[in-house]
Amino acid sequence: MNLALIGVGLIGGSFARAVRAAGRVNRIVGFDTQPEALQRALELGVIDDIAFSAAHAVANTDLVMIATPVGGIRAVLREIAPHLRSAAIITDVGSTKTGVIEAARAELAGVFERFVPAHPIAGSERSGLEYSHSALFRGAVCIITPSADADLNALRQVESLWNDIGCTVEQMSSEEHDRVFAAVSHLPHLLAFALVAQIASDKDAERKFAFAGAGFRDFTRIAASSPSMWSDICISNRSAISSELRTHRELLTELQRAIDEGDAESLRRIFQQAATARRGISVSVE
Amino acid sequence: MNLALIGVGLIGGSFARAVRAAGRVNRIVGFDTQPEALQRALELGVIDDIAFSAAHAVANTDLVMIATPVGGIRAVLREIAPHLRSAAIITDVGSTKTGVIEAARAELAGVFERFVPAHPIAGSERSGLEYSHSALFRGAVCIITPSADADLNALRQVESLWNDIGCTVEQMSSEEHDRVFAAVSHLPHLLAFALVAQIASDKDAERKFAFAGAGFRDFTRIAASSPSMWSDICISNRSAISSELRTHRELLTELQRAIDEGDAESLRRIFQQAATARRGISVSVE
Repeated sequence: MNLALIGVGLIGGSFARAVRAAGRVNRIVGFDTQPEALQRALELGVIDDIAFSAAHAVANTDLVMIATPVGGIRAVLREIAPHLRSAAIITDVGSTKTGVIEAARAELAGVFERFVPAHPIAGSERSGLEYSHSALFRGAVCIITPSADADLNALRQVESLWNDIGCTVEQMSSEEHDRVFAAVSHLPHLLAFALVAQIASDKDAERKFAFAGAGFRDFTRIAASSPSMWSDICISNRSAISSELRTHRELLTELQRAIDEGDAESLRRIFQQAATARRGISVSVE
Repeated sequence: MNLALIGVGLIGGSFARAVRAAGRVNRIVGFDTQPEALQRALELGVIDDIAFSAAHAVANTDLVMIATPVGGIRAVLREIAPHLRSAAIITDVGSTKTGVIEAARAELAGVFERFVPAHPIAGSERSGLEYSHSALFRGAVCIITPSADADLNALRQVESLWNDIGCTVEQMSSEEHDRVFAAVSHLPHLLAFALVAQIASDKDAERKFAFAGAGFRDFTRIAASSPSMWSDICISNRSAISSELRTHRELLTELQRAIDEGDAESLRRIFQQAATARRGISVSVE
């Protein structure tokens, strides 16, 4: 199988390394809007060839993996659509799924049924090819959100690829995916960015950061994530994130009232609900 | 030197183990409102004797360490005041300092100048004696917030104890301490509690927690902290926390507007400010 890899960052680079290590691909041709990253991917042997464009990359390949930030996926789909082989399978790794599927339905016309939307729950606050490695997905969950008219062969092939590189594959609707991740991933990122931006804007920023301890370090680790990738995600999944953020702001209004009124009992009740839940959950993905 | 330890939890227990390991105390008498914890502290050799009350504990000791949640400190001070030796040094490890100093000024009358307020920046989301160990403070910063009329000998003795168990001691005003920690510790705890309580209240809570990844795990680690300890802290430092929370809510209102209007540029600007700051800071305390 030949692979066209569009986007050679942390996730795309790790996927390429992993499927090659698993013996699932013969040849990988890559494209990225950043020429240096593409050159580096060739030097590191992550890809075998550089394509001049996404359209060139897909011309003779069986599988197309789109691993750009979600905001760039629609333009890639539009560009590659006329150049796809008739049997090609197209997949992605975007962090939001409903918007990506809408874009694929609009852009891929006759081959939409062979588009398999995926989201591996792996990665870190570090982005870029330099951090990519073939074991990134080992032990992770990969969520696939197929549409009702998905081609079953394409679906099985993409599932087997993720299985072969160490993932457990779970299927759900794109709407459920976007609701779940708005709560457990997108909102936490938003809050971590907001807290660090707030302190950084303070006149005592340096003094405050100097006394930050382990709790702060862990809470804000994700605030070092890629700003453009996360603004893309916020726009792409805006309706679910907007709803979670609204609920969160209501809860903070209630906490503000409790603090201002010295209402220790309400604070304790909310903290207890959180502590019980947090101690009880097994966080599935390391 | 003899030590009276009031409160045998994670911090009090670790302090007792550490000063004993450093050879700084001969005998430790303990008191705690939880009899089982006290019994366990005796069994583990963390303390040498059990006192029937805080008043009994301090009767013949040179140094009194109050390691209760901040909400309990005033009552302890009131109880022990009539029983303190004339040369006794009194100190604490409360996470907020201005309120503790006010309580000490009110309750300790003639011996207030030998009260040395301290806050070691160590600990974890786990509380209780079972997690205590003598190396907890090694490499940590201990902040001391002396009042203007502090007894210099008492201050030096408390500083040298923290130095001997591995801390760097820094002095600052209690007001600065409370402002700094409202931003880098108290508000993050409040937000982590709020996020987990929000998801736990959702009808899809189980499904959402099932897909939580590494970012969520780190972001919410502190939401497993002691609810009563943290409601105490919120009440004790309410003015500084209230102000930080208000600023945070304003920033979230701005983020909500940006998401609802699809204003990617504003999102990216705020995220970039945060990412730059977070990547640049050296988080001093592991």
